[in-house]
Amino acid sequence: MFELEAICGRARAGKLKTPHGKVETPCFMPVATKAVVKTLTPEEVREVGARALISNAFHLHLRPGAKFIEQMGGIHQFMGWGGTIFTDSGGFQLIRSGFELKVRDSGIRYKNANTGAIEELSPEKCVEIQAALGSDVAMALDDCPRFGTGREGVLESTRRTVAWARRAADARKESGQLFFGIVQGGLDEKLRKDCADALVSLDFDGYGIGGLSIGESRDEMLKALRWSAECLPAAKPRYLMGVGSAAELLNSIAEGVDIFDSAFPTRNARHWTIMTSAGNYSLSRAEHASVKEPLEEGCVCPTCRNYSRAYLHHLCKENDMLGMRLASLHNLFFVEWLVAEAREAILRKRFPEFRDHFLSGLPQKTETGEEE
Amino acid sequence: MFELEAICGRARAGKLKTPHGKVETPCFMPVATKAVVKTLTPEEVREVGARALISNAFHLHLRPGAKFIEQMGGIHQFMGWGGTIFTDSGGFQLIRSGFELKVRDSGIRYKNANTGAIEELSPEKCVEIQAALGSDVAMALDDCPRFGTGREGVLESTRRTVAWARRAADARKESGQLFFGIVQGGLDEKLRKDCADALVSLDFDGYGIGGLSIGESRDEMLKALRWSAECLPAAKPRYLMGVGSAAELLNSIAEGVDIFDSAFPTRNARHWTIMTSAGNYSLSRAEHASVKEPLEEGCVCPTCRNYSRAYLHHLCKENDMLGMRLASLHNLFFVEWLVAEAREAILRKRFPEFRDHFLSGLPQKTETGEEE
Repeated sequence: MFELEAICGRARAGKLKTPHGKVETPCFMPVATKAVVKTLTPEEVREVGARALISNAFHLHLRPGAKFIEQMGGIHQFMGWGGTIFTDSGGFQLIRSGFELKVRDSGIRYKNANTGAIEELSPEKCVEIQAALGSDVAMALDDCPRFGTGREGVLESTRRTVAWARRAADARKESGQLFFGIVQGGLDEKLRKDCADALVSLDFDGYGIGGLSIGESRDEMLKALRWSAECLPAAKPRYLMGVGSAAELLNSIAEGVDIFDSAFPTRNARHWTIMTSAGNYSLSRAEHASVKEPLEEGCVCPTCRNYSRAYLHHLCKENDMLGMRLASLHNLFFVEWLVAEAREAILRKRFPEFRDHFLSGLPQKTETGEEE
Repeated sequence: MFELEAICGRARAGKLKTPHGKVETPCFMPVATKAVVKTLTPEEVREVGARALISNAFHLHLRPGAKFIEQMGGIHQFMGWGGTIFTDSGGFQLIRSGFELKVRDSGIRYKNANTGAIEELSPEKCVEIQAALGSDVAMALDDCPRFGTGREGVLESTRRTVAWARRAADARKESGQLFFGIVQGGLDEKLRKDCADALVSLDFDGYGIGGLSIGESRDEMLKALRWSAECLPAAKPRYLMGVGSAAELLNSIAEGVDIFDSAFPTRNARHWTIMTSAGNYSLSRAEHASVKEPLEEGCVCPTCRNYSRAYLHHLCKENDMLGMRLASLHNLFFVEWLVAEAREAILRKRFPEFRDHFLSGLPQKTETGEEE
C-alpha cells in the first residue's frame, strides 16, 4: 500500500497505492472541500501536477449529502476526478468555522444550517459518510484544540481523539478504502507521543498529523511534528494536515512527512497573492501594472506561458474570475513543482542541499501559515 | 473586406476580413468588456467556436487606459486573443451604467470614478482611444436613447448620432482598422431610415444597428431592424448590437444581420441560466439536483461532454466559480453553434426551414431580451 523508495536524513520518497492510482510522495493535495478545487477543472488540476485531492466529509454530508453522492456513482464520478481522493473527517472545519455547538465524548454537536436541525457528527457517522462518498483514504474524526488551548484542554482533546479513533477503527467495514488516524496533542511532547503511540497500536493504514500551523511559531510546529513523526512506523505514510507554504513544506519533508494538503495556494490566488521561489507577493501592487514578464520568470505553468503580469494585474484590479483561475493554476503548479523537486532531491540523496538552497531564496519568517 | 457568399431570402452568409483573420458570418461575438470574457481563457472562447470578440473602448480607457494597452502591444497582445476584436465606443454602456452626467453636442460628460475628475467622451476622443487599443473594428460614438424616450428625444439623439458619426469619420486616420457607424432612430421608421441613409453617405466599412432589444417587443424590434437594414448597402456588413437570445438571433439573421454580440450567454451563465434548443432553464431548480445527464442532451460542448447536470447543480448551490465557467462555456457554445447552423442553412438555401424548425422548439415569447 505504501512503498518507501528512498530515505535522505529523515526525508522520505515513496509511493502510495490507492484504489485510484499511485501517488508519488512527498505529495501535495489541492483542497476540494466541496468536491471542487475552486475555479479549476479536474483536468487543469491534473495538468499542474496534482495526483491526489482532499475533500471534506462533513461539508459534503451537509450538501449535497453522502448518500446522494453514492447514488451519483461516488465522489470520483460525481466531480470527474479519476485520481486519488482523500476525505477529511471535517472535525477541524466544523470547529474552525464556528458550526459546532459542543464537543462531547459522543461526538460534535452542530446546527445544520440547511435544515436548522441540531445534529451530531460521531466517529461512527464519520466512517459511514466517508464509506458512502467512496474516497480512497478516509480520516478518523479527531478533536483538534484551538491554538492557545491550555494543557487541560489539550489533554482532554487528545484523550478524545484517541477514543474516537478507536471507535472509528471498530466501525470501519472492510473495503478498498484506506483509513488514517490523526495525531493530536498540541505542542506538548508527552501528549503528542502518547497520542501517536495509541494510534499506532490501532494499526491504521497511515497517520495524519493534525493541530499544527494554526498559529504557533515555526519552531514550535517543527518540534511537535518531530515528536509526532518519530513515534510513527516507517512503513506507513504520514500526512501533515493543512500545511502548504514553501518553507513549511520543505521543513516538514525534512522531518519525514509524505503527504500535505492546504487551501493556501488556491485561497491566496483568489486573494491575488502569488507564490514564487523568491517568496509571495501581492499582484494588486502598482509595481506590477506594466510588467510584461510572467508572474514568475522561468516558470512554465500554463499561466506564465501565456499571460503577462500586467494583464493579470489588470484582472486583479477588475477582480475578475479568470484572473483568480490563472493565479490558482500558477500557485498550485508552484507547490506541486516544489514537492516534485523535493522528491527528486531525496531520490538523489541531495535533499538537504536542495532545501537549504531553496530556503535561502525565501524571506525569513518565524511564524507558521501564509501571508495574505 | 466583406464577401457575400450566399443570400437566402434576406438572410446572408459571408466572410468579414479583418487584420486578425476572417470571420464567417452570421457570427456571434462574446463580450469582453474589460479585455476578458468573464471566467474564460481566450483558448476556451476559441474552442467553443468564437472567432471575434467585442471589447469596450470606454471601459478600457478608464482602466487600464488605451495608451497603456498600446504600450503593452495592443489589445490582442494584452489579452492574448489572436482573433478579431471589435471595440464598442462605450456610449451605450456609459449611459446605461449611470456614469454619464450630461449628453451634449460636444460629447458625453461623465465622472471618472477612478480619479473623481469630470471628463468628456467626444466622437474624436473615441476614435483616438480605439486607434490606441488597436482593435480590428472600431465603432463611432453614438447617442442611444433609453427605451421609452419620447419622439423629440429620439429625434435629438438621432441627429446627434449622425453628427457624431460625421465627426468620427473626419477624425479617423488611415490604418488597417475598420470603422463602423451605428444606426439609431428608436422605433420610428422615418428616423431609422434617415439615420441609416445619412450614415451610408459617410461610407463606413460596416454598420451597427443600435438601440434595440432594450425593452421593446419583438415585433417592434424586428420592424425597427428592418427599417434600418433595408437602407444599408448589401455589400457592407451589418451588426445588430446587444442581441444574443436564440429566437432574436434567428429572426434578425432573417432580416439580413451578419454580426451580433451580447453579454447574455455569459451573464446568464454566471446567474445559472442555461441556454438550450428547448429554451432556457435555471440550474438552481431542485428538479436538476439528481440528473445524471448533461446540461443539454446531445450537446457536445466541453461542459456537456464531461459533467452531469447534478454536479453543476451542486456547484450552483455552492455558487462556485468553476460552475460559472462551465455554464459560460455551454451557453457560448450553444449560441456559436446556433449561428454556425444558421450559416450552413443559408449556404444550403434552407434557412427558413431551419429557423421555423428551431423556433418551434422554443417557448413562445413576445418581449425582447433574455429571461434570467
